[in-house]
Amino acid sequence: MHLLIPFSVCLVLAATAVGQKPHPCESPPLMVGRASVIYPKREALVYERVTYDALGKRIRLRAQGVEHNQSFYEDVLMLFREGVVYQISYKNQTCTKKPMDMPFQPIEIPQDATLQSQIILGSSSGPGQGLLVNNWMGEFPGQKVKYYMMFTEFGCIPVSTLYTSHEAGLILLSFFDIVIGIEDPQDFIPPDFCETRRVDNELVVTDFFEALKKN
Amino acid sequence: MHLLIPFSVCLVLAATAVGQKPHPCESPPLMVGRASVIYPKREALVYERVTYDALGKRIRLRAQGVEHNQSFYEDVLMLFREGVVYQISYKNQTCTKKPMDMPFQPIEIPQDATLQSQIILGSSSGPGQGLLVNNWMGEFPGQKVKYYMMFTEFGCIPVSTLYTSHEAGLILLSFFDIVIGIEDPQDFIPPDFCETRRVDNELVVTDFFEALKKN
Repeated sequence: MHLLIPFSVCLVLAATAVGQKPHPCESPPLMVGRASVIYPKREALVYERVTYDALGKRIRLRAQGVEHNQSFYEDVLMLFREGVVYQISYKNQTCTKKPMDMPFQPIEIPQDATLQSQIILGSSSGPGQGLLVNNWMGEFPGQKVKYYMMFTEFGCIPVSTLYTSHEAGLILLSFFDIVIGIEDPQDFIPPDFCETRRVDNELVVTDFFEALKKN
Repeated sequence: MHLLIPFSVCLVLAATAVGQKPHPCESPPLMVGRASVIYPKREALVYERVTYDALGKRIRLRAQGVEHNQSFYEDVLMLFREGVVYQISYKNQTCTKKPMDMPFQPIEIPQDATLQSQIILGSSSGPGQGLLVNNWMGEFPGQKVKYYMMFTEFGCIPVSTLYTSHEAGLILLSFFDIVIGIEDPQDFIPPDFCETRRVDNELVVTDFFEALKKN
């Protein structure tokens, strides 16, 4: 019994030590926030208002941006469980429902990612002056896409992700103004004028940029 | 007298309202931290350990990086009041003292900068999950260099600065792990083996990248 006490103390110490090393984490399942996407190969710069529900596998994006010198505004609702995407225009009271063949990708650090560094953005010298973040890197298997991800240590909030691949070049995705929770659950309900439209089976959406395309 | 009370209340409210808009600020005069520089035109990627003293106009940089596929390590002490830069090698016990014709540029937001946006990196939903920062932009007069600066709202700590000009292309300077104060005041004192070296009057250092160059 006496031997057990130091042993259990060692176990606790070991657990604390292991606990200090950051581990891949999954972001909160319900979030709203803003994102910017810089995609040089498509000459695209996009600002998005994002509503994210990993429980219901639903994303609402209100995106405005520039691609090849053409500005655009798109409002899309992606329902991954149903496999459909709605392209909504309140101004024109129009709505296009398209099939979507794209797996829901939760905002998370892949389990096989490598911790590059833990840094403080700003300073740890005063309250409100700094943010402790972890930098991760890795490669998506089979796709030859390398990623560099920055997430907060506390709360596992995404800050930025850089994707690089031979095919697509660089894509820089930055998040900010994140709030945990859903401000308006109606963001995930298609407006009334969507209901009667048929699914156009010819055009299957397979990536985020396609989802933002009218044609 | 009775009229004065609402008037003074109005003044206080007005002062509060004005106080809420971020203003250009100067960073703490004494800081240590790390910085990274990405300079695509020179194919340069540099990591630096920085000791910064705006009171004494002194900077110590320990830089390691890659330029045109060649890796380098440099340790330089820049004394702007004396107008000299020391290039130090403890390993070889060598030290080169060069004249420097470069004004000391404190870390600050220029007074004529324009506030682009105030954002939260990460989230404001939980403690330690977010960082309130201000984004500024402007142009250095005469030099046609545009800048985009991110500083923390509290403490005026630099986070990143992007410089763009037709001549130099893009330069991205990022700061992290900033601590207010000077960890080691000896960082600003040239080592003993520097004292006897003469100033080479031929080579005048005029920018930071030159200061990092041996030849």
